[in-house]
Parts: sequence; structure tokens; C-alpha cells
Amino acid sequence: MPVNLVVPESITAVPGVRLGTVAAGLKKNNAKDLVLVNLDTTSHTAAVFTRNAYCAAPVTVARQHLKASKGAIRALLINSGGANAATGTQGLQNARSHCSQVADILGIATDQVLPFSTGVIGEQLPGDTMRNGIDQVALSLGTTSDHWRSAAEGIMTTDTVLKQYSEQVEVDGQSITVGGFAKGSGMIQPNMATMLAYVFTDASVSSDVLQSLCEEVADRTFNSVTVDGDTSTNDAFVLVATGVSGASRVDGNVLDTDHPAWPAFSGSVLRVATWLAHALVRDGEGASKFITVRVSGGKSENDCKLVALTVGNSPLVKTAFFASDANLGRIIMAVGRSGLDYLDLNKFSLALGNAEKRVDVMDAGQPAPGYTDEIGQDIMQAAELQIDIDLGAGEKSWTCWASDLSHDYVSINADYRS
Amino acid sequence: MPVNLVVPESITAVPGVRLGTVAAGLKKNNAKDLVLVNLDTTSHTAAVFTRNAYCAAPVTVARQHLKASKGAIRALLINSGGANAATGTQGLQNARSHCSQVADILGIATDQVLPFSTGVIGEQLPGDTMRNGIDQVALSLGTTSDHWRSAAEGIMTTDTVLKQYSEQVEVDGQSITVGGFAKGSGMIQPNMATMLAYVFTDASVSSDVLQSLCEEVADRTFNSVTVDGDTSTNDAFVLVATGVSGASRVDGNVLDTDHPAWPAFSGSVLRVATWLAHALVRDGEGASKFITVRVSGGKSENDCKLVALTVGNSPLVKTAFFASDANLGRIIMAVGRSGLDYLDLNKFSLALGNAEKRVDVMDAGQPAPGYTDEIGQDIMQAAELQIDIDLGAGEKSWTCWASDLSHDYVSINADYRS
Repeated sequence: MPVNLVVPESITAVPGVRLGTVAAGLKKNNAKDLVLVNLDTTSHTAAVFTRNAYCAAPVTVARQHLKASKGAIRALLINSGGANAATGTQGLQNARSHCSQVADILGIATDQVLPFSTGVIGEQLPGDTMRNGIDQVALSLGTTSDHWRSAAEGIMTTDTVLKQYSEQVEVDGQSITVGGFAKGSGMIQPNMATMLAYVFTDASVSSDVLQSLCEEVADRTFNSVTVDGDTSTNDAFVLVATGVSGASRVDGNVLDTDHPAWPAFSGSVLRVATWLAHALVRDGEGASKFITVRVSGGKSENDCKLVALTVGNSPLVKTAFFASDANLGRIIMAVGRSGLDYLDLNKFSLALGNAEKRVDVMDAGQPAPGYTDEIGQDIMQAAELQIDIDLGAGEKSWTCWASDLSHDYVSINADYRS
Repeated sequence: MPVNLVVPESITAVPGVRLGTVAAGLKKNNAKDLVLVNLDTTSHTAAVFTRNAYCAAPVTVARQHLKASKGAIRALLINSGGANAATGTQGLQNARSHCSQVADILGIATDQVLPFSTGVIGEQLPGDTMRNGIDQVALSLGTTSDHWRSAAEGIMTTDTVLKQYSEQVEVDGQSITVGGFAKGSGMIQPNMATMLAYVFTDASVSSDVLQSLCEEVADRTFNSVTVDGDTSTNDAFVLVATGVSGASRVDGNVLDTDHPAWPAFSGSVLRVATWLAHALVRDGEGASKFITVRVSGGKSENDCKLVALTVGNSPLVKTAFFASDANLGRIIMAVGRSGLDYLDLNKFSLALGNAEKRVDVMDAGQPAPGYTDEIGQDIMQAAELQIDIDLGAGEKSWTCWASDLSHDYVSINADYRS
């Protein structure tokens, strides 16, 4: 059961995007496992990929194609049911051949296709199944308004629910749509996780500006959530601007950072990505809590992020939250082992809160007056909790989000392949 | 149930060490919770402590006393049932006052006493209970041969069995004893863990030489094991040479690194510490597997250690081992996210083995010929497993040891305070 996750039944289709989905036979039980995204010719695409040094074959190929095509991507091919990672030269050949098959069908260049895979690492994708699947999924391409929900379904692995979200924002008096879908619930951690996320907009944005926005948004969203601290070989966050909306071209220009509507537009992309990133944590494997870790008083945002993720990744912190046990000394332990060289317990402050109540636990290294274990226990019963950490050493802050560590996490990951 | 852990019923007492233990009332159920170690006047003591920036009050005091007394420590006071960590200035005052009470009773200086605490973080040790307990434990001091087993018992927290080990080694034709005890089964990770370990010998070794040996041994043993990647606020490894053996002073000198018996002696200290460090992992919270991770082909020993501990700490690797599932792609994922900048999947080799069988899984980035999932699954059934990783980039290697991640780990840590 995801924690307080209400997924909209449907999202607003983004003009310039056509989707197809099939059950190719990569996953069991005739589940949808192959998604093809066809993008309008005016589209620009930006992406960030896993920082895992042993990235999967499709990640290597996608990076090459994105660079070679200068962002002029026309198709995304996404399969679940196999990661095509640690598959050697055969895996690379396969990823390239999938792209070339899509390119032939759609009449585009091979480097205009980006491949994405998710699933078990270390197994080759079955050749015939993929070849037939690609033919089928191309035939299934619908109109812009079709298949959004089934595309979100088609990329799922251990997700218990599909994740999709959209909103609309006004640019030049016209409505722009920002919407997309994501998958991932384990191997979720900073620097991208076993997650694939796709956000589309019909705004017109240049490749460079889109890439900067993509990186900034990824840092504040998908790179600031953690389920288990593991980073997959396959992660990607893709941001596509199809440019088919009349709105953003009303003056003949693309939407740029100095456009009066830029704050509204970029804010909308950030909100959609934040919603999807939170959804990954809320549906985190075995999650029973949604924990916001806000760290302030650091000397840099990166320092604050490091501390927040160390707390969010600590198995001892996570099991205490699973138990609704205010064993908050474990938070102090986790901050203390985060590796910052200027930590001083005499400056450390800690507060704990839920939607209704907030209490100071430590104040500049001393137990906060008035804090009792009973108050802590009472707050800990909530499913949504916030930890506020003040390092007392600077002016910077960062916020991350984490799930707890439950019996179900162990069950899900012990049984994943069986 | 610890994994293949056979603890000797008794160990050889180390001349020059007198022990006392009582149930002071810090732990429930009248369990032993306070241990006093009285050391002969010829003793030298070396120690390494947690690298957690928010170290506990007793760690701060022990560091100060060890420095002030130049290693001429005469007593160790160890309590379980409370960590005296995150307890502010009151906690520091308490730790000092415990030492001063011991010093008064034994007629030594306060800075010749080292305090150690383990248990829940963030609670003050109860004043009267500690005061009475210290009086009692001093009265309980026995002869050299007494109380070794009950001292090992008295420092336990979530340990399911006590950990003690000793051996004897010949120096100058006489027998030297090396023996000790340790506690810890969770919050175990590099850079010391929720662990306290004490190794004693009756050899005569100078403070400086002993401190170097202590650090080197800690690095290869207690800093190379992991249960959950968390580092406690209280950890310490203490190495005491009482110097009362005639053997090592036969020529009027202390045992030094250029003594012909040094390799035998230092080897013995390393073996005893290794036995105790492995015992922590074998009794790791919820452990059902004992996993040796050997990394070779790195550019430095530290690089190899980083990779080994990243693999040993990965929740996804650990749950796969708990399930005896050869989902070995997760090992590749973990190596890939370890952060070394020279990782090249085309040079990566991986083998898996147990006591009876060993199989190559990946060979220079390609799936190894002949490896099948069935072979992997077969090997994974054993309780003791070895992962061999070759980074193919250098000549250095390192070995670490880890437990798996089981339902019991979650249960133990969710219920710890209740």
C-alpha cells in the first residue's frame, strides 16, 4: 500500500506525443511491457542518466544518440521485463538493433531513437520477442490523446500502482500542458535510481535550455529521494518539449529563461517531477512512512543533501520509523557519520513533526527542554513525518524524501526473481 | 542463530588483567551490565574510536584520558544499557564522574580510567544506579583467572551470544597469551560500529608500537566488516599489553617490531581480532549468511575496500543473499555505484563460490561461458559464500565480510527499545 498516494485516473495528453503499448512477452502474465513514444518533428529532448559506472547497454546507446542527434529525438522505446545491463557487447548490439528497427518503421534516423530498459540485470533481452514486440508496438501507436495510462502501466516493474501526473500553465495567454509518467520503487537513491521518468510539454524550448532545466529539476526531485540507497544501472529522466503549442511560439520565439512566463513554466515542470519523485517514495518497496528530511545550517546545498540522504538511507533510522519508534538517537548517529568535517554536536539541533504537531528534540547539542519520549512517540504514529536538522554551521539547506525499511521491503527483494 | 559461530566455552586468562562484573540495573531482567577491568601497573593501552563526528561522551573522555595518561591506563569501565551519547554537557560530566569514582576506589588518577558505554542513544545514564553499580563492580574484582566469560556477557546488547577468543603464541621460548571479548551485532560498518572490542596480551609492548598495531589490526578486521552500514557514536577497539609475562622481557626489552617473534605475536593479535570481527558479522542482526567480499584489481587497497563495503552494504545485494537468489546483477550495480572514477565494465570480472564450488559469472565484462543461473542458485544455498570481484585496473586487493538483510534484521531494529 503506497503511503498517501492518490494517482489521477487520467492525465492531460500532451500535444505532439503519440504513444503505443503492447504486451510483448518480456513480462509474465501478459502484462504490458513495451512502450513506444513517437514525438513531433518540432520536439527537443533532454535527459539525465544514471551515474552508475556500469550503466546498462541502452543507457550507453541513449547517451550516444542524444548527442549525435543534438536532442532532435523522434522516438523513445521503453521495455520493462529486462534491464539489458551487464550483457556485454551482445547487449549493446541488441539495444542498437532495437533502435534501428524502430527507425526503419518510422522513417527516421537510428540516432533519433532512445532506448530504455528496466528489469533484472544480467540477462539478454530475447531477440525474437523484442523484434515482434517492436513491430506490434509501432502498429499500436494512437493519436495524441490515446494510451497515456497504458504507457504508464507498461513501464512498471515492482511498482504497485502506475504513476502519472499533469498540470497546465498559462503562457502568452494560452494553455501549455506539462505531464508524464514514471516507474520505480526499489533501488531508488540519489544520482538516479531504478527509475524511469518521462515528462512532456507542448511548449517550445531550445535543446540547451531544456537540458539545463532537466538537470536542475532532476537534482531537486529524482536525485533527492531514496528508498534503499542503491543506484540502478538503467535510470533516466527524460524531458521532452514538443513545441507544437501555438502559445509559446506566439512571438515566433521559443520559451526561454528570460520569457515572462518562464518561472510559471519551469515551476510547473518542477511540480510535475516532484509529484512523480514523491510517488516513487510513497510507493517505495514496503514503504509505510513518507519521511521528509530537511537539513539547514550547512555550508553548501550539497553538504545538506549528503546529510539528508545519509539519514534517509540509514537502515537503523528507517527501521525505527517503520516501528513508529522515536529512537531519535539514530538520527544523530546518521548525521554524525555523514562525513562532513565541520560537524559540531554543540551546534546540532533536531526537530520532529507531522502535519499537526512539531517538537524540538535537541537544541544546540543539548536535549531540548520539554521534549519527552511520549511526545516523540505520539508524533511518530503519523504516516507522514518531517525531520528538521540544523547543523548550525552555515546558511544553506536542502530537502530530501525517504521511505522506511519494513518487512515488506525484505520480502519484495528476496522474492523479486521468483 | 549466528552463522557457523562456535564460541569457545572459556578462554585463557591474560596475566595482568583483573575483571569484575555486576548487574547494576541499567539493563532489564537483572542482566549483567557493568564491567570493570583493572590492569597491572606495567600495562600499556592503545585504542581506536568511532569516526562518527557526534561521538558519545565516554568516547570524548576516553580520548582525553588516553592522551593525558600517555597510555598508562589502569582501568576500563564498560557499561551496557545506555550509550551516554547525545546527552550534552550533563553526559560529559557523568562520564568524568564515573572515572573519578573508579580512580578513588582503585587509588589511581582519574585520567588512568577509560569509560565505555553502549545501548540506546539520547538518554542520560541514571546517576544513583551508576554510582552504586561502580561501588559494587569494584568489590567484585577477582583474580586474573576469574570472570572472563561474565565480562564478555556484561557488555552485550542485541548480541545473541557472547564473543570471546584467545590463543597462545611463543615468544623467546615462553608462552604469551592474546585474548579478549567483543560485542556488537547491529550498526556495524566501516570506521568502527556499535561495537566494543577488547584484546589483552601479557606481552610487553611500548605504547607507540601498540598504537600502530592497534590501528593496523582495526583496519583489517573491525573496519572491514559490515552488517548495516551504520556507524555508532560509541565504538572502540582497545588493545592492552600488560607486560607481566617474563617472556617478552627476557632480554630486558619490550617486544618491538624488529623482535624475531614480532610476526608471530602481531599475527596472533590479528587472528584474535579477526575471529572477534567475524563473530560480530556471524551474529549480525538477523544474519543468515556470512559473505566474504574479496576485491582485487584496484589501484589502491582503499579503493578495493570501498567497493567491497559498497557491495556488502547494498540492501539489494543483501536481500538477494538472504533469499539464496543468484541475482548477481545487483553486485554489478553495487560496484558500479561505488564512486571509483576508473571503473570499466569491460574489465570487470566476477566469481561466486562456497566451500565446495566456485564459478566465474562475468569475465572482462562479458557473461562467463558456462555460467548458468542454475549453477549460481546451487552455490547460493550455502550459508558461507564468497564473492570475488576483479576490477581489472590495478594490483591491489582487500577483503571485507558482510551479513545478509533478513526479516529478522527489521524485527530486531523495529523492536529494539520496546
